[in-house]
Amino acid sequence: MIQGHQEKKTEQDMDQEPSLLHGGDLYGAARQSGRAAGELLDFSANINPLGIPPRVRQAILDHMEQTQRYPDPLCRRLVQAIASKEGLDAGQILCGSGGADLIYRFAYARRPGKALLPAPTFAEYEEALGQVGTKLMFHALGENMQVGEAFVEALEPGTKAVFLCNPNNPTGLLTERSLIVKLLEKARTLGTTVFLDECFLDFVEGEEKITCKGYLEEFPNLIILKSFTKMYAIPGLRLGYVLSGNRKLLEAMRRAGQPWAVGGLAQEAGMAALEDPDFPVRTRQAVDREREFLREELSKLGLLVYEGTANYLCFRAPGETRLYEKLLQEGVILRRCANYRGLDPEHYRAAVRNREENRRFLQAIATVLADKNIEEMEQ
Amino acid sequence: MIQGHQEKKTEQDMDQEPSLLHGGDLYGAARQSGRAAGELLDFSANINPLGIPPRVRQAILDHMEQTQRYPDPLCRRLVQAIASKEGLDAGQILCGSGGADLIYRFAYARRPGKALLPAPTFAEYEEALGQVGTKLMFHALGENMQVGEAFVEALEPGTKAVFLCNPNNPTGLLTERSLIVKLLEKARTLGTTVFLDECFLDFVEGEEKITCKGYLEEFPNLIILKSFTKMYAIPGLRLGYVLSGNRKLLEAMRRAGQPWAVGGLAQEAGMAALEDPDFPVRTRQAVDREREFLREELSKLGLLVYEGTANYLCFRAPGETRLYEKLLQEGVILRRCANYRGLDPEHYRAAVRNREENRRFLQAIATVLADKNIEEMEQ
Repeated sequence: MIQGHQEKKTEQDMDQEPSLLHGGDLYGAARQSGRAAGELLDFSANINPLGIPPRVRQAILDHMEQTQRYPDPLCRRLVQAIASKEGLDAGQILCGSGGADLIYRFAYARRPGKALLPAPTFAEYEEALGQVGTKLMFHALGENMQVGEAFVEALEPGTKAVFLCNPNNPTGLLTERSLIVKLLEKARTLGTTVFLDECFLDFVEGEEKITCKGYLEEFPNLIILKSFTKMYAIPGLRLGYVLSGNRKLLEAMRRAGQPWAVGGLAQEAGMAALEDPDFPVRTRQAVDREREFLREELSKLGLLVYEGTANYLCFRAPGETRLYEKLLQEGVILRRCANYRGLDPEHYRAAVRNREENRRFLQAIATVLADKNIEEMEQ
Repeated sequence: MIQGHQEKKTEQDMDQEPSLLHGGDLYGAARQSGRAAGELLDFSANINPLGIPPRVRQAILDHMEQTQRYPDPLCRRLVQAIASKEGLDAGQILCGSGGADLIYRFAYARRPGKALLPAPTFAEYEEALGQVGTKLMFHALGENMQVGEAFVEALEPGTKAVFLCNPNNPTGLLTERSLIVKLLEKARTLGTTVFLDECFLDFVEGEEKITCKGYLEEFPNLIILKSFTKMYAIPGLRLGYVLSGNRKLLEAMRRAGQPWAVGGLAQEAGMAALEDPDFPVRTRQAVDREREFLREELSKLGLLVYEGTANYLCFRAPGETRLYEKLLQEGVILRRCANYRGLDPEHYRAAVRNREENRRFLQAIATVLADKNIEEMEQ
């Protein structure tokens, strides 16, 4: 069940462009394809297909002067706005420069000697924990990729942190709240912090029945990661936050990096975003419709699509390990999943975008797969 | 000569608003004064008095769409532009989310067991090193606040890093290049990395004779910190970089934090900034004129002004430990220096701004000091 410990990166790995290790690098892909980043149809980044909300865009334009001042290091007004929206106390909130910043701050502040992670899951947990020498215990999720009771059982005494991404990245599969509560209970007994990444839960219909935001008081060993980046389509501005009832942990995380992490425009964008509670509702409806369209069409092409629930889909393309490169030739970027632990080079992840873009994507993938069939017939 | 080791922050310190510990928090000051941040005349932040250059502002407006994409984690185009400007190899450059981000990345990547720092100097070095348990050796600069031969002598075997800020913050005093070269030579022998902060050197007339950028090849133990924030008045966007011939150190620093630290707009702003090489020249002329005006007028008011060379001045106000609070009443923020090691509550730092703002500042300070004289006479 436990796959193994952290592998040391080899010298050869270090020489590669880092983009090849982490993914999420549109610019490396653009360079590889000989196109400008803006010319590529990017299905590798999971950004809201509705794009940046007009009021957020306007807020950025209205507050251009903010760039001339140091930002509020404590994000006081933004924290208050988040507190009101989430129905939480301001002391339970810490903002950061995107979710990834907060993952590193957690690693530096908590310095877990040993941590449990599912495999596959988001790669930044491992990258961040690697900085503090954490012994990593990977729990292989098995064929169906579902987090189940076995994950709770895999939590051993001496484990200082457990990571769970809900819905998981890259599979998009959900873990039921009842199971997470079991994990929280066992973790509390063992003195383990549960790092629960709900960054993509905003895109899931019925998210209010899945989120663990209601458990912060009951479980001070719980910390929840949230993002503005994906829902409000502002990954270039960098804005995320964590929620926890453990104020000492939040204070330690604040001190674990620079004081002015969150830019002034990002803070204004965040406050404007919270003024439109209907935007996430419209988003979930659009994403739901488009995701099901995409799932159906990808399945028709013979691809094995996981039951993803968020604004992305993970699929296996049997016998097809060069789909990324072939689609790049067509001007489309897919997310390769070969570097996720527990996934092989036949696995890919695609964002859910709008109907017209999804059609273009499907056409490109159909072309590429048809070419392959012709090649095979000719051989 | 060596003042002592790092003091543990007390519980009481932890309960204070962090702004009171670090400084550089306009928003805390605004709250304290009951005014909006924009209404205050901010002499606490050392930003270019010419403001954001028009072409940088335009670049931000032109690239608003960048906020909808993940930024290039390697800042490839910006790094190339910096390399051209500095006449360096792209491999010698690492960008970060402002200078402070890079100070923390250095601390996490280098993890020096022991470090030497002058006292006083910029407080973030100590904050960042505190995160990795570094034993801090403080070298008291003495009455004239000048870094001299004694600082080089204070460098002991076993010291893994030495920090030097040139011009120093908050005093604005310069260290001659010949002395820094001596420090580099001794440090190389001892295996010590020299972290040289030249963030404010851009504001100093004759900076080309002081910078150590020409020594990167000769001294792989040298790392130089540079900032866009101050010169181009974009502290809200967060952009800085380091230069070093030690590529392993730069790669370790890149991995010591999130991959997407530098936002898309910040990268565009940085590239636009480098297209106007005349702007820093005009800035130095304006700053030089205004700084001398300010120095003269502050001296006339009986304040003891250090021979600062950058876009800020440090001064002592004999018998006056509440100047910050009194000026805040007048809507002006000064930088208190009481929390700098080696400075007492009579020390303050003021930014150099434009003539009209400098006059308003001088008027406010004259009013406050006159009130004090009246009080004393009445007693």
